[in-house]
Amino acid sequence: MIGRLNHVAIAVPDLDAAVSVYRDTLGATVSEAVDQPDHGVTTVFVELPNTKIELLYPLGTNSPIAKFLERNAAGGIHHLCYEVDDIHAARDKLKAQGMRVLGDGEPKIGAHGKPVLFLHPKDFMGTLVEIEQV
Amino acid sequence: MIGRLNHVAIAVPDLDAAVSVYRDTLGATVSEAVDQPDHGVTTVFVELPNTKIELLYPLGTNSPIAKFLERNAAGGIHHLCYEVDDIHAARDKLKAQGMRVLGDGEPKIGAHGKPVLFLHPKDFMGTLVEIEQV
Repeated sequence: MIGRLNHVAIAVPDLDAAVSVYRDTLGATVSEAVDQPDHGVTTVFVELPNTKIELLYPLGTNSPIAKFLERNAAGGIHHLCYEVDDIHAARDKLKAQGMRVLGDGEPKIGAHGKPVLFLHPKDFMGTLVEIEQV
Repeated sequence: MIGRLNHVAIAVPDLDAAVSVYRDTLGATVSEAVDQPDHGVTTVFVELPNTKIELLYPLGTNSPIAKFLERNAAGGIHHLCYEVDDIHAARDKLKAQGMRVLGDGEPKIGAHGKPVLFLHPKDFMGTLVEIEQV
């Protein structure tokens, strides 16, 4: 069912510092920062040859990553995103196997303009999993 | 400097359960479990089209992931591994920029038979980073 690893998301407490580490220290290609007010984050993409690292920085009040950064002051890996062909079929198959889909279970348009759902980390070995229809 | 994301490593408290989630629930191709006594882990690789997920389960006493699993009972993402062309050149460049290399700073042969080094998570936004010469 799952296809490519679309991205690894890392929540960071200092976006400029994180960009510098990935661009200057690790020598990777890094996108401009983009505010995503609908998602409560500012995102920067680190473009690797085979996948992306998504740097997430809180935007506005009630950012969905604010609590994560309270618990992980230095930052940390926030979620993994796997690609699926059909997000409704994937959701129904996962739910039939007892996996918990977060929110109301209806796909939302994610930060990349594609339908996404998040799955409960307790059902995936402590990993918050995003599935994205590509 | 960094190239492909070689793998995402996830430490798991129950390897059979983790294999079942990735193989049966998520429908991915999963390798046989391999004991790596030199590294204190049993590994299973989830083969995605563009990268791998490495499931890590403690092997023997003093497994390097035992403490991580004490802190993260459900499991969790343990490290990211980036490929480099020349691990000595990468190490020297990182050290010159103040990044901390773990251990004695000399590359070890990792679980894939290639030279690896680990970098301090505090220098990489809370992410334990492995670099592997490919």
